[in-house]
Amino acid sequence: MGLLVVGSVAFDSVKTPFGQAQDVLGGSATYFSVAAGFFTDVSLVAVVGEDFPQEHLRFLESRKIDLSGLERVPGKTFRWKGEYGFQLNEAKTLETQLNVFQAFRPKLPAGCRGREVVFLANIDPVLQREVLKQVEKPKLVACDTMNYWIEGRRSELLETLKLVDILIINDGEARELSREVNLVKAAGRIRAMGPKTVIVKRGEYGALLFADGEIFHAPAYPLEFVFDPTGAGDSFAGGFMGYLAKTMDFGPRNIRKAIIFGSVLASFNVEDFSLNRFKKLRWDEIKERYREFRKLTHFEDLSED
Amino acid sequence: MGLLVVGSVAFDSVKTPFGQAQDVLGGSATYFSVAAGFFTDVSLVAVVGEDFPQEHLRFLESRKIDLSGLERVPGKTFRWKGEYGFQLNEAKTLETQLNVFQAFRPKLPAGCRGREVVFLANIDPVLQREVLKQVEKPKLVACDTMNYWIEGRRSELLETLKLVDILIINDGEARELSREVNLVKAAGRIRAMGPKTVIVKRGEYGALLFADGEIFHAPAYPLEFVFDPTGAGDSFAGGFMGYLAKTMDFGPRNIRKAIIFGSVLASFNVEDFSLNRFKKLRWDEIKERYREFRKLTHFEDLSED
Repeated sequence: MGLLVVGSVAFDSVKTPFGQAQDVLGGSATYFSVAAGFFTDVSLVAVVGEDFPQEHLRFLESRKIDLSGLERVPGKTFRWKGEYGFQLNEAKTLETQLNVFQAFRPKLPAGCRGREVVFLANIDPVLQREVLKQVEKPKLVACDTMNYWIEGRRSELLETLKLVDILIINDGEARELSREVNLVKAAGRIRAMGPKTVIVKRGEYGALLFADGEIFHAPAYPLEFVFDPTGAGDSFAGGFMGYLAKTMDFGPRNIRKAIIFGSVLASFNVEDFSLNRFKKLRWDEIKERYREFRKLTHFEDLSED
Repeated sequence: MGLLVVGSVAFDSVKTPFGQAQDVLGGSATYFSVAAGFFTDVSLVAVVGEDFPQEHLRFLESRKIDLSGLERVPGKTFRWKGEYGFQLNEAKTLETQLNVFQAFRPKLPAGCRGREVVFLANIDPVLQREVLKQVEKPKLVACDTMNYWIEGRRSELLETLKLVDILIINDGEARELSREVNLVKAAGRIRAMGPKTVIVKRGEYGALLFADGEIFHAPAYPLEFVFDPTGAGDSFAGGFMGYLAKTMDFGPRNIRKAIIFGSVLASFNVEDFSLNRFKKLRWDEIKERYREFRKLTHFEDLSED
C-alpha cells in the first residue's frame, strides 16, 4: 500500500507580475507530496542540504508525509530562480543551482520498498530507473520528465519509459519526445514507447488523457487570480496519483476522476506563492471545486433532434 | 423566424504544411451559412463581384441558403491569402484585397427584415449597426469582430456592442478589447460593455462561455489530421447560431448544447480545404461527433468520498 515519490525538494525564488518570493519552499516532490497527502500516505524520497530548516520538515511531517527517505547531507539545498510574464504560461528560468542534488543517488529505506504506487518526478531518467529497481512490486508507476532529459538523455529516458504505466508531461515535451506536432499522433507514438496512458498537461488549457481507445479532456479551472503557476504540474500529478493510490482503482472511469482531482489541486496551488494555499486548504474546498468542474463541463446529451 | 448573417464572401488562397489551395470559396458569411444550414434556413447578406462563378451560387442555393441579400456588383470579389505554420494556430495574412467589399453598404431585402436571429460576422462595426437597424424585431443578436476594428474603430465597436446579446471572439481579441490579460476578468469587462454572453474561442483549446453567474468550457475535438483551420471560427459560430435559431431556446442549457454543435461543425471544417468537408458532411456524422464530445468530457460525480 501507499504512494512513493522521488524528486526534488528545493528553495524557489519566483517573480510574477503580482509579486515575488525569495527562497521559499518548493521542488517537484514537495508539491507532489503535499497535494497527494490530501488523499493518502506519501513517502518522499529526495535530498536536502544543511541549510534546510526544521520549520519545513515539521510542516511536511504535520502532513503525515513519511520523510524516512529524505536524506540530509552536507552542502546547500537545490535552488531554482524563475520569472513569469503576464501570460503566466511558462517560467523563464533565471538560475538553477543543483547543489546537493548533483550527487544524489536515491536510496529507499526498507520501509518504503513495499510501496505499490510510485511517482518518478522530473529527475535524471537513470535515477528514475534506480528508484524503480528498489521498489519490490509496484502496481502502478507514473513519471514526469522535461526537455532537458528528452534532448540530453534520450536513450536513457526511452529505457525508463518501458517500465512506466503513465507518463505525465506537458504539450511541448510530448511534441519533442515524439517528434510529432499533432498531439493525437504524438500520444500514439509515446504509447508505443511504453506508457499505455499518456497525460498531456496544457497549463491554462487543462489536460488531455490518451489511453486505450479513449481520449479525455479536462479543462483548467478558470481563475480570476492566478498568482504563481510554480508547482502546478506537480500538484496536478500529486492530486491525480494521490486519488489513485487511495482508491487503488486504475480503471478508465476512476482515472478520469483522478485527473479532475489533479486539476482541482493544481487550481488551488496557483492561487498563492509556494505551498501557501495548500497550508490552509480544506477537504470540503477540494470537494466543492470538484463539483464546480462538473458544472464547468456539463452539457446535455442529444435528445431526438 | 430564421437566421440572418452579414459578412464576407471571398476567394481564399491558403497554404498549410499539408498542401495549398488557390482562389477557393471562402469568407466568414460563407462558412457561417453553410454550417448553420445544417440546422435551419439562413439568409446571407454580402457582396460579390462579377468574377464570382455560378457554380458557387448553385452550391449555396443547393443548401437552401437565401441569396436575395447577396449583391452582385461590377468589380472583383474580396480576396484573402494566408499561410499557416505547423502549429496551425494562427494564420499569417499575406494579402487582403477588399475589392467590391470596400464600398459595401448592406441593404436588406424586405423578405429578410423579419429574421429574428442575427449574426454580424467580422466586418466594420458601423456596417454591423446599419444591418441591425434594418432588422425589424431581432430576438437574438450575436457578433464577431477582430483586432483591426478593436484597434482602429474602438468607439464605433463599443456602440455596436451595446446592441448585441452575444459576442463571439478569440482569446487575443478578448484581451485586447478588455485591456485585461486574465480571461475571467476580461469577460467580465466585456459583459459590462453590452453583450451579456461572451464566448471566447481558443482554437485548438476549445471555447469558454461566460454568462450570468456561469462559465462553461467546451474542448476542441482532438483531431489526428487538421488540414486547414481557415473558417473554423465562422463554422463554430454557424453551428452555434444555427442550433439556437432552430430551437429558439436561448436558456443556459441550450446555449451549452449550441456551443457543442458549434465545436462539432468547426471540427469537421478543418479536415479539408475551403468548404470541401461540409460538402459531403451528413447529419448522422454531426450527431455522432456530438456524442463523442460527451465521451471526451464526461467524468463521474463525487460519491461520498
